[in-house]
Amino acid sequence: MDKEISQAVIRRMPRYYRYLGELIDAGVERISSNDLSSRMKVTASQIRQDLNNFGGFGQQGYGYNVKYLYEEIGKILGLNEKHNIIIVGAGNLGQALANYVKFEKFGFVIIALFDVNPDLKGQKVRGIEIHMLDELDEFVKHNKVDIATLTMPKSKADTIANHLVDLGVPAIWNFAHVDLELVDKNVVVENVHLSDSLMQLSYNIVKNKQK
Amino acid sequence: MDKEISQAVIRRMPRYYRYLGELIDAGVERISSNDLSSRMKVTASQIRQDLNNFGGFGQQGYGYNVKYLYEEIGKILGLNEKHNIIIVGAGNLGQALANYVKFEKFGFVIIALFDVNPDLKGQKVRGIEIHMLDELDEFVKHNKVDIATLTMPKSKADTIANHLVDLGVPAIWNFAHVDLELVDKNVVVENVHLSDSLMQLSYNIVKNKQK
Repeated sequence: MDKEISQAVIRRMPRYYRYLGELIDAGVERISSNDLSSRMKVTASQIRQDLNNFGGFGQQGYGYNVKYLYEEIGKILGLNEKHNIIIVGAGNLGQALANYVKFEKFGFVIIALFDVNPDLKGQKVRGIEIHMLDELDEFVKHNKVDIATLTMPKSKADTIANHLVDLGVPAIWNFAHVDLELVDKNVVVENVHLSDSLMQLSYNIVKNKQK
Repeated sequence: MDKEISQAVIRRMPRYYRYLGELIDAGVERISSNDLSSRMKVTASQIRQDLNNFGGFGQQGYGYNVKYLYEEIGKILGLNEKHNIIIVGAGNLGQALANYVKFEKFGFVIIALFDVNPDLKGQKVRGIEIHMLDELDEFVKHNKVDIATLTMPKSKADTIANHLVDLGVPAIWNFAHVDLELVDKNVVVENVHLSDSLMQLSYNIVKNKQK
């Protein structure tokens, strides 16, 4: 792909993928952009525009082949490859993420957790072992790690993120409530800021009351 | 506020709030939009434009009063009010969220969890009681509930969401991997779709490899 596709378009792709998956489960083989549009509550022209970024996939007058489109969007999202994930920070959130079986369905496999709390050493979450943080370097040297999930306090997030990048980890899924200052700008970072999400909700509650 | 402010602007507000909070902690009393801009890595004109949506707050040539701006953005985000939260689904994710002390700092107070698993009945997470789902109606009648967090399987999400809305809960923080079909469109919904976030990460990993 030569063209730079906007992150706004990319953010909509997982939703298409989810709806197409549900259509497959429901036995639907073909769908028009109008029908897909009314189900997803976006305009048909938005759907066509979004998919045209990747070359189209629809035939005028015939609609989309659901399974084909699902698989193609899966490839666009890299879901045809397996991604190994480690979780740094085995507190409540880290353990909650490790317990999500659903991620595996999409090729995201959690292979280890790390923490500094010696009480957690050797414990397992859904069969996945919690290691001590000082075993991180050795682990990353001997295992393919595609994504490091950061679920530790924000004060340590920068140091550990940069260390992971030095070790060759190409992507960070960041739950620490901080914008990471990464020395290597070529690393992929995706933030999940739960407090920000709550604040946006709270803004809309206040605004809704004023209506 | 008469003007409709775009959600894109609102999504940036919690980040301003976070940076201003850090400036206060660092003892900074006044900051120019240029300095704020270089810290936050957005343009100074973006900052001015965003804040002008709410009437400005800066004086030309004097920059922003950090504490005043922090408080004003807090009010815009509704953080000057206390928000009571219940969590429906006391599995790993629900319990992880209940353990987040940090939310309370911003006025979000988790007052109860609910689940259908009888083994969890009466258990507490950070002192917060897990109730059975059939106690939900009575609880909501006798307690002010501002936000219901959905951390249960997606198959049950629509039914419970609509029931909560019927009970008068004005806002839903939805972690179930589904777009809620709400009968009452006047309810505020904020989605946290963790799988979607992982898929966006995975897209960017693949794209980065092709560079």
